[in-house]
Amino acid sequence: MIFGAILAGGTGSRMGNYTLPKQFLPLGDMPIIIHVVEKFLVHPKIDCVVIGVNPEWHQYMLDLIEKYFPNQSNLLLVDGGTDRNSTIDHIICEIRKHSQNDDDIIVTHDAVRPFVTVKMISDNITLAKKYGICDTVIPATDTIVYSENHMYITDIPIRKNVYQGQTPQSFQIKLFEDVYHAMTKEELDTVTDACKMFMLKGHQVYLAEGHVSNIKITYADDYKSAQIMLGSMNGEKMS
Amino acid sequence: MIFGAILAGGTGSRMGNYTLPKQFLPLGDMPIIIHVVEKFLVHPKIDCVVIGVNPEWHQYMLDLIEKYFPNQSNLLLVDGGTDRNSTIDHIICEIRKHSQNDDDIIVTHDAVRPFVTVKMISDNITLAKKYGICDTVIPATDTIVYSENHMYITDIPIRKNVYQGQTPQSFQIKLFEDVYHAMTKEELDTVTDACKMFMLKGHQVYLAEGHVSNIKITYADDYKSAQIMLGSMNGEKMS
Repeated sequence: MIFGAILAGGTGSRMGNYTLPKQFLPLGDMPIIIHVVEKFLVHPKIDCVVIGVNPEWHQYMLDLIEKYFPNQSNLLLVDGGTDRNSTIDHIICEIRKHSQNDDDIIVTHDAVRPFVTVKMISDNITLAKKYGICDTVIPATDTIVYSENHMYITDIPIRKNVYQGQTPQSFQIKLFEDVYHAMTKEELDTVTDACKMFMLKGHQVYLAEGHVSNIKITYADDYKSAQIMLGSMNGEKMS
Repeated sequence: MIFGAILAGGTGSRMGNYTLPKQFLPLGDMPIIIHVVEKFLVHPKIDCVVIGVNPEWHQYMLDLIEKYFPNQSNLLLVDGGTDRNSTIDHIICEIRKHSQNDDDIIVTHDAVRPFVTVKMISDNITLAKKYGICDTVIPATDTIVYSENHMYITDIPIRKNVYQGQTPQSFQIKLFEDVYHAMTKEELDTVTDACKMFMLKGHQVYLAEGHVSNIKITYADDYKSAQIMLGSMNGEKMS
């Protein structure tokens, strides 16, 4: 089976003076997270969608589900953990109550990236089936520089080899379980990205093609951009 | 002396179906590049501003200067080169006709980053005077991944050490001349970033603090964001 996993553990501290976590802010006629859930629910290869939400917002999310997806039997809600990987782990524990196949796939996605496409999800599923793990990326638009001392540049990597990570990130569920349980507490405290965790344990993470429009709504400016992008996709005038 | 150098060599092929190079597109009541030139002209420490423009757009830029900055004696226009470093070299050749001091400083800036601040320019001047070279950066917001084979991830650098490069990039002019002339043709063909060139020749490039709002207008979406940002700075309602 193929599971969609919507990661909504955050409470949006970087968004400035909005009272709601960013995934609940309205975008067009529905909250950002509802756009995301809908994209996964309508995808022909996704069997079930599990949302991992911060416990404080559990009831709020339940109410949204009731409003937008009443009687949707393949949509589950679980409480997220303290970080990204533990939220994925909580979601997988819930999935395991329903399916225990070694070739089950999970397609994890940020609740604040509403412009994910059917093609990105399909490509993720194909790559995760074939290679076990994949990450969605785009070529970096900015020049990236490293500084280990935060005073001067210690390296500028070759630009054509640099990518910006997006989501979805997808894996065979069995592989995630094996790798996650092999991590020490210290490793889990420092490795916040699932793909980095796989790399640490010696696995190859394949690249799926993202898109510049697949933005993460982190700052107020991103939220404004998202509103414009939605407007133009709905046929409003661009110029 | 302190020189501002506005780099406008590009013709904006990534902007989609706009007929003008992006630096000439209107933003509020004047073209993007005019916002940039104005920021440098009004800065109390900048003695002179030199614009490096693609030769095809030389007359167009001259007309803009005549319109927005008539009789401005400390504003010069030169033809840019085939890449970023050669455009800086052309600008420096022009500067050398007017000043040959070893401690002259050049503050180079993208013509399509209209939200540079007085503070960024001031910080650049301070660092370039003290250390010889600096680059304006912000902490990377996206996870950056590295792939040498473009199939799977070969490295994920530690996030807190990763920065996105912006501009201004500033240097002692004498240092740029020394380093640029020490580069082989092959090196110049592969190293398109001035800071990377300094690093290649063993110099330390210090970090100046940029800001997320100091965006580069590369894609149509950036142009839309810039229009919104200008609107909000001019007191229009954000929400």
